[in-house]
Amino acid sequence: MTAARFQRLRQVLMCRQPDLTIVTDNVHKGRNLSAIVRTADAAGIGKMHCSMPDKDYKAFRGTAMGSHSWVSVDRHPDVKTALTPLKNKGYQVLAAHLAEDSVDFREADYTRPTVILLGAEKKGVSAAGCELADMHITIPMRGMVQSFNVSVAAGIILAEAERQRQLAGMYSQRRIDDDCYHQTLFEWAQP
Amino acid sequence: MTAARFQRLRQVLMCRQPDLTIVTDNVHKGRNLSAIVRTADAAGIGKMHCSMPDKDYKAFRGTAMGSHSWVSVDRHPDVKTALTPLKNKGYQVLAAHLAEDSVDFREADYTRPTVILLGAEKKGVSAAGCELADMHITIPMRGMVQSFNVSVAAGIILAEAERQRQLAGMYSQRRIDDDCYHQTLFEWAQP
Ligand SMILES: C[S@@+](CC[C@H](N)C(=O)[O-])C[C@H]1O[C@@H](n2cnc3c(N)ncnc32)[C@H](O)[C@@H]1O
Ligand SMILES: C[S@@+](CC[C@H](N)C(=O)[O-])C[C@H]1O[C@@H](n2cnc3c(N)ncnc32)[C@H](O)[C@@H]1O
Repeated sequence: MTAARFQRLRQVLMCRQPDLTIVTDNVHKGRNLSAIVRTADAAGIGKMHCSMPDKDYKAFRGTAMGSHSWVSVDRHPDVKTALTPLKNKGYQVLAAHLAEDSVDFREADYTRPTVILLGAEKKGVSAAGCELADMHITIPMRGMVQSFNVSVAAGIILAEAERQRQLAGMYSQRRIDDDCYHQTLFEWAQP
Repeated sequence: MTAARFQRLRQVLMCRQPDLTIVTDNVHKGRNLSAIVRTADAAGIGKMHCSMPDKDYKAFRGTAMGSHSWVSVDRHPDVKTALTPLKNKGYQVLAAHLAEDSVDFREADYTRPTVILLGAEKKGVSAAGCELADMHITIPMRGMVQSFNVSVAAGIILAEAERQRQLAGMYSQRRIDDDCYHQTLFEWAQP
């Protein structure tokens, strides 16, 4: 490991956001999950969650690309099991979902502890997911097509979260605790 | 065709932005192109351009999904042929590209006639594309991974273009001319 590389690992850990995460609600295509993991890393997310069947998860890990070593991905058997511990810790759950009562995604406050809940390719966010959400957010669409690809939607929402957190100075001071920082740095620095 | 459907076609045409487009510089994966077309439609883009070999283009059209009937996609043999007519019409070319002199993508003015130039999966924007660009724009990344998937990058940049154009009232009055409006409505309304 070069000094420059070590410096880069430290820099990235200084930007990690322990109170921002993604939960996917039965997103099952490996390439969509991979693009979401890559996008999560870019926003400083160090850990995300997938509600999906074990066999889909195994297939996804099998084809895993580089970014997965930088973001830890926990699998959960259902969306309630994924969301409940986060809700108990005080996270707001923003479901990316087109509903009657959805608000424009830019109106949400992403500087609060936040879960972004993303729905499945065909079925969108499940009824259980919708119910556990504190707010439904939607990205405006001006065309004939009714939805974005899920990884594109993730990118657009996370770019707004990054913008708000950058303005709030949340990337200018370390946000993860000493233990997490040293532990992760140790793991990443292994050859 | 129901009256509601016809109303929807008209509404979408009222939002079309004749002075906003995308040029892809050898993006070759069909699923990336499809996601870009879908995202272009959502921002009100009615016509986009791909610089790519004819055989890749044919493969892409072969697997084409729904959104392609709403956005017309022109193929060009190289990026210069794609960009020159647009530059001659006064479009600024914003290359999505990480370079020394790149500016944050939010600093660009997307209310001007604008081409967003997107680079290939592996190689990024070509040297020829970079040279024809008026500005290089970049989306901030806080993680270990060095780039977004190209369709995710397209989504993030187009969401900013949509935001600026919405604020400028560019979706509140028809922007395409009478000919284009009536011609497209006629084509779309065919059974
Ligand atoms: C392909 S979409 C699912 C479409 C599904 N037919 C529906 O109506 O929910 C997959 C996921 O991407 C996200 N998504 C796509 N377009 C969105 C938009 N305009 N606003 C918010 N989220 C969106 C949502 O999380 C959605 O569940
Ligand atoms: C996978 S990237 C190409 C990476 C390539 N290795 C490079 O260095 O250019 C594909 C395209 O997505 C767009 N893109 C990806 N990440 C971007 C970012 N952070 N800022 C601007 N554009 C980006 C660019 O158009 C890029 O050419």
